[in-house]
Amino acid sequence: MDGNVLALAGGVGGAKLVLGLARTLPPDQLTIVVNTGDDECFHGLHVSPDLDTVMYTLAGLSNPETGWGLAQETFHALEMLRRYRAETWFSLGDMDLATHIRRTQLLREGRSLSEVTAELASCLGIAEQLVPMTDQPVRTVLETDAGDLPMQQYFVKHGSQPQVRSIRYEGAEHALPSPSFARALNRASMVVFCPSNPFLSLGPILAIPGVRESLAAVPNKVAVSPIIGGAALRGPAAKIMAELGYPASCAGVARQYQGICDYFLLEPRDEGLAPEIEELGMTPLVAPIIMQSDDDKIALANYVLSLPELA
Amino acid sequence: MDGNVLALAGGVGGAKLVLGLARTLPPDQLTIVVNTGDDECFHGLHVSPDLDTVMYTLAGLSNPETGWGLAQETFHALEMLRRYRAETWFSLGDMDLATHIRRTQLLREGRSLSEVTAELASCLGIAEQLVPMTDQPVRTVLETDAGDLPMQQYFVKHGSQPQVRSIRYEGAEHALPSPSFARALNRASMVVFCPSNPFLSLGPILAIPGVRESLAAVPNKVAVSPIIGGAALRGPAAKIMAELGYPASCAGVARQYQGICDYFLLEPRDEGLAPEIEELGMTPLVAPIIMQSDDDKIALANYVLSLPELA
Repeated sequence: MDGNVLALAGGVGGAKLVLGLARTLPPDQLTIVVNTGDDECFHGLHVSPDLDTVMYTLAGLSNPETGWGLAQETFHALEMLRRYRAETWFSLGDMDLATHIRRTQLLREGRSLSEVTAELASCLGIAEQLVPMTDQPVRTVLETDAGDLPMQQYFVKHGSQPQVRSIRYEGAEHALPSPSFARALNRASMVVFCPSNPFLSLGPILAIPGVRESLAAVPNKVAVSPIIGGAALRGPAAKIMAELGYPASCAGVARQYQGICDYFLLEPRDEGLAPEIEELGMTPLVAPIIMQSDDDKIALANYVLSLPELA
Repeated sequence: MDGNVLALAGGVGGAKLVLGLARTLPPDQLTIVVNTGDDECFHGLHVSPDLDTVMYTLAGLSNPETGWGLAQETFHALEMLRRYRAETWFSLGDMDLATHIRRTQLLREGRSLSEVTAELASCLGIAEQLVPMTDQPVRTVLETDAGDLPMQQYFVKHGSQPQVRSIRYEGAEHALPSPSFARALNRASMVVFCPSNPFLSLGPILAIPGVRESLAAVPNKVAVSPIIGGAALRGPAAKIMAELGYPASCAGVARQYQGICDYFLLEPRDEGLAPEIEELGMTPLVAPIIMQSDDDKIALANYVLSLPELA
């Protein structure tokens, strides 16, 4: 693959393929656009869970047990915040807090989330372009039987238990793609939809006005299914899809990308759903898409990047 | 001693006597007013070094090696902030950061520093009234041969090395005593000037308009010298006094409290300076004022509290 690759990613699942892409491509040929619909203010600090998951992964600092947070993290500040009767249901480690403290400080000084993200990533030695989907606030809110819940409240505080009736992306209608995202949309020769939750991770990115239209004009768009055998590899994607009335399958995911995706990668056990995906106007490709080791991630990245030439 | 005791304190030295007083008096008879001229913004967080030193001391959490900071503290966030190229010359531990995070959050929500301090102290089980000298910003700035330096920059970043020409308390002219300080000034039956730096710790408190006048009207005012044998027990008090042209002695300290202090406690080796102190209009009292153990602190507090009855 020659040219500029634009990867769209959410949290842990997306970060795996992002790592593979980063290990495969020269840094100046990869722009990673990350969901910020989960961003939340904790203790007065701006937390960007998906950006941080991808950033820590690329920096080689992420916790290999969880996929999010930092390896060898401690939680002494959080214990003290609990003594101060702060709400501590969202786990924030000591090193992780430094990220949020620094981000919040730089934002308050008037810098954009794009600028701050670039600075933090550069300090951690990341050469790829890691960018938020937008510099404006967008908030993913799940309308559930337990009321309206912002994403982290639904996912962490309520353990993804409430039944989801619909999802809205508050603020998306007034958001612009971040400058680097807009640039990448204009010059990309390939787009990768990483295996992230289509509603909670890539949904907010696609909800920004103009993004779907711009994507339609880019060649070589490849999606990797986050759903295998009717279940999400991690997270509540399958549960939410069923509750929203979509088939909880890779075909249900593909439907979200109809009109903006050319190739759809599914796992061998889902081969039977290939015709359904073809009907949506995409080329279904059966491939080993489960990534455990770093070698798996690099192998999948290589396969994804080879698709335009195979076609 | 019956009635209400008002203690004026700065950092580590003051906190020792404050602990003795707190262990001796019923909590509702002690108001501790602490210097906030050292307050500083680090990483966008509001840090109140003297308030925290006294708070951690009263909560039994302070680091016994240093007198400031918390026991068994870790510095993982600070290491990470260093990676993010933040200025990290001011040592902030992980648990300590939680204090600043929580304080900053509550201040941003519109609460006063008095209210926030009361909440934090209550969470740590402190029953005494621990109050900032003012809810308005006051900043102690040292005019030195290395330029104008706020207190923490002078003390920590420059290791108290620059020569001090004068000291100003920025904002003091517009500051009001905090509500609890004003109340204590009105109803105190005794005031204790803890052994803190007279220029950097108690100076800012005394610079608030009306404080000296109110103190003059309170009976039974006792100061404990922070200078012994011409040297400060800790910190740059003696050096600064000499540079400002004052005698670097307990008599030089006493001069700062002329007209607002009745008893001045000096260490036996300074007995020769007693007549000089008497000339300033105070009763000099020779006593063992060096506090090492908690028993020393309680013994000194008992002695101080007994003075009105002895008189």
